[in-house]
Amino acid sequence: MNTPFNTLKLVHLGIDTQREHVVFMRKDCHICISEGFEALNRVLVTVKGKSKIATLYIINDGILNPGEAGLSESAWGDLNAKEGDEISFSHVQPVNSMRSIRAKMYGQELNYESLQNIINDIVKGEYSNIEIAAFITACGGDSLSIDEIIGLTKAMVVSGQRLSWNKKIVVDKHCVGGLPGNRTTPIVVAIIAAFGLTIPKTSSRAITSPAGTADSLETMTKIDLSIKQIQKVVEQENGCFVWGGSIKLSPADDILIRVERALDVDGEGQMIASVLSKKIAAGSTHVVIDIPIGKTAKVRTEKDAEKLKYYFNVVGKAMGINVNVLFTDGSQPIGRGIGPALEAMDVLSVLRNEKDAPQDLRNKSLLLAASIIEMVNGTKNKSGLQLAKEILSSGEAYAKFMAICQAQGGFKEPEFAPYKEDVKAEKSGIVTEIDNRRLAKIAKLAGAPHDSKAGVLLKTPLNTKVQTGDVLYCIYSETKGELKYSIDYMKSEEDIILIQ
Amino acid sequence: MNTPFNTLKLVHLGIDTQREHVVFMRKDCHICISEGFEALNRVLVTVKGKSKIATLYIINDGILNPGEAGLSESAWGDLNAKEGDEISFSHVQPVNSMRSIRAKMYGQELNYESLQNIINDIVKGEYSNIEIAAFITACGGDSLSIDEIIGLTKAMVVSGQRLSWNKKIVVDKHCVGGLPGNRTTPIVVAIIAAFGLTIPKTSSRAITSPAGTADSLETMTKIDLSIKQIQKVVEQENGCFVWGGSIKLSPADDILIRVERALDVDGEGQMIASVLSKKIAAGSTHVVIDIPIGKTAKVRTEKDAEKLKYYFNVVGKAMGINVNVLFTDGSQPIGRGIGPALEAMDVLSVLRNEKDAPQDLRNKSLLLAASIIEMVNGTKNKSGLQLAKEILSSGEAYAKFMAICQAQGGFKEPEFAPYKEDVKAEKSGIVTEIDNRRLAKIAKLAGAPHDSKAGVLLKTPLNTKVQTGDVLYCIYSETKGELKYSIDYMKSEEDIILIQ
Repeated sequence: MNTPFNTLKLVHLGIDTQREHVVFMRKDCHICISEGFEALNRVLVTVKGKSKIATLYIINDGILNPGEAGLSESAWGDLNAKEGDEISFSHVQPVNSMRSIRAKMYGQELNYESLQNIINDIVKGEYSNIEIAAFITACGGDSLSIDEIIGLTKAMVVSGQRLSWNKKIVVDKHCVGGLPGNRTTPIVVAIIAAFGLTIPKTSSRAITSPAGTADSLETMTKIDLSIKQIQKVVEQENGCFVWGGSIKLSPADDILIRVERALDVDGEGQMIASVLSKKIAAGSTHVVIDIPIGKTAKVRTEKDAEKLKYYFNVVGKAMGINVNVLFTDGSQPIGRGIGPALEAMDVLSVLRNEKDAPQDLRNKSLLLAASIIEMVNGTKNKSGLQLAKEILSSGEAYAKFMAICQAQGGFKEPEFAPYKEDVKAEKSGIVTEIDNRRLAKIAKLAGAPHDSKAGVLLKTPLNTKVQTGDVLYCIYSETKGELKYSIDYMKSEEDIILIQ
Repeated sequence: MNTPFNTLKLVHLGIDTQREHVVFMRKDCHICISEGFEALNRVLVTVKGKSKIATLYIINDGILNPGEAGLSESAWGDLNAKEGDEISFSHVQPVNSMRSIRAKMYGQELNYESLQNIINDIVKGEYSNIEIAAFITACGGDSLSIDEIIGLTKAMVVSGQRLSWNKKIVVDKHCVGGLPGNRTTPIVVAIIAAFGLTIPKTSSRAITSPAGTADSLETMTKIDLSIKQIQKVVEQENGCFVWGGSIKLSPADDILIRVERALDVDGEGQMIASVLSKKIAAGSTHVVIDIPIGKTAKVRTEKDAEKLKYYFNVVGKAMGINVNVLFTDGSQPIGRGIGPALEAMDVLSVLRNEKDAPQDLRNKSLLLAASIIEMVNGTKNKSGLQLAKEILSSGEAYAKFMAICQAQGGFKEPEFAPYKEDVKAEKSGIVTEIDNRRLAKIAKLAGAPHDSKAGVLLKTPLNTKVQTGDVLYCIYSETKGELKYSIDYMKSEEDIILIQ
């Protein structure tokens, strides 16, 4: 035996398994055989004295030579691995906190300590994806009690970084189950910061949609700020709109959400804990939660919304923050642009009080801003809505928006992509239905959100009267090839916009 | 754009992800970008007109060139893929039957139709591992009702092949949570077949242990028989002992068990359905279930065993088969050998009525055979135990064992591996404890079950009086290197056999 007792040489394979640590070993490797390792086993791998638990995948031939092993990108990075490093292996017992999940399967309630151990182990990367799936399922549906939701929220808060502000009141807003083009955030932040309240807003990038708020903001300003930079911006301008991914607030959530999405499972308790833990970690004291209700929205009936509202209020109270839940119309998308830059243009046209600005985006932003103002301020001589309208109409909100952009690193005007296709009405009539899901797919085929200027610009909202040949929407793309992909798809589908 | 609209060229990567179909694509691949695919997405892949759902893994660089994609071994095989084949991709909705699992998370009971859809989709390979984990968790613990267990059992039976026999009575036995070295099967089959009952026994290979019954039998005869061959053997000799892996009885079980093991989760309802579905698919009418109770066994208390017994009886009755549940001593291993050939030697020494045959293995085999005989025959003038003893002591069982081996393809004598190390007592006293888990690890490091002659032979069972220098156990290995691995490990551990 020339190979050492228990080490192999690492080669870089470049396989991205997201957060899950994976180790690749040959089927005929003497370590697999002698240790009795089999595919899907959890194995403790050690590189230069640093250890991580990884899931084992077996390679039959091809990409590894005898004596070699590989790692997924996440494990490669976390272990600071270099090509040719020695890697050693040992058996690992199933992670201890999984016991609580098994107990939960038998109906036992999870206490705070158990939940904290589970969340800490998940953040440390000690759970495989199937173990995370078991946690999500065991705590899914309506199976978490109020006490468990409170425990989970606390555990998620303490597992990551926390922001703190020298302010008695710090506000925030959150939308549960966003609609396409629902870019109220920059407008609300501008109004609220101009009003004088502290609103340090973090947003996320798109995962499956054509644009996240962060993607849209990035077409206008710098959004990946450090905590120190965020604190400077907020001190100076009362508010910010930055990407949450560069600071680790409630990091368990980012891990859970990938598996939840893959399972298409979203437990109520976990959703409440996920939203509130991020707000608490961001230092908020007052939070407005927007629940759009509609047949294609996440929440479909007022009854479901009432249940969520109850949970948000009870858990918020237990965690010491004020929560105000709003129900809004979730039956159609907000704004006209679909894609990062196109949605940014909607935002700017509302802030600039342009005559043809999308009124739905304007009204919804005012409603949310008003609700924050009234929650904190009470209604004195003017209503929250009056105050919000004055700040927006007077140009104060726009000035504040530009000031925040300057503080974050400067403002730039969002641009249209160079290639464009007008999609025209083939008959006359009234627009009675718009298929948002397929419009979003066209925007993605055209390149959004990867190509920030690509997307779809809707010209004819619901109830518009159109003539044959009128432009219904424009597709924008940064390359001819992508424009062709989106047109091919568009032509293969019928009645994306229904005219009757 | 020179690359086609929606196809890539396949390259063979040789990555074995077990049953889960996985597709590997480059991060910068135009299809990933335009379709918005992300890691862990389920994607419909099509090769030469044949489609399968696969989980997407993203490759950053290294093993795929632009325009190429790879598949896991299972998907490669199921799609009959060849190097250079074109592969195309499309989005896929989450598999429909997952809806029932989500409903179960909200407390809804699963009816037979839902369970059948889930099991069929799992057998077709349409579930990702995380979806299987969600199913196992949602139905885990004690969350399945009797009706659900019955529905699951039926669904598992109809999802695979079934054996049928022209006999009114077909018997079988099963042990829940086997102990190391618990090789009663060949002895019981020999006694029962000699008695004249039909017993078509299928066994499994080791997954994590040093030997499965099938591995042990393989050191003596051919065990991978076709259904046709099995039927011929049983017609001629009343019984067989073959590997269950080559015939597809209750194939869902083999898929579920991998994920259950990785999660270390074993729901009661699923266990009942798993055991009974295999017996029913094998055509059994009378089944003896052996539940060893002990602190290192799967079932730890009589109370837990009683609950399982109740379920086995009720579900068995609903499925139209007779079940007899036995509780046995699970506090120490049965026999002396650990490893395929060494365990086969124990079996032969009992069948040959050798003076130093392991009495625990002999007694337990007699007990199980007696229980089968009494279940079918009732007690006439002789007890089942008397009958079983006579058949074994007279050599009839041994003759039947040899006849079955001949019918299966011939008998060969199991052999010791060439390299051996005696592990000796370092002090005098009484053996008070034996750590089976660590003895099994030594056997595996020595090469078992891969090297069938390797393993551990225990010389001093519990309560043996030993002198300093007496041999406690021998390690057998087929290579010097593996012998060294096992000795290195043995030396690094203390009190594997405790002498006081």
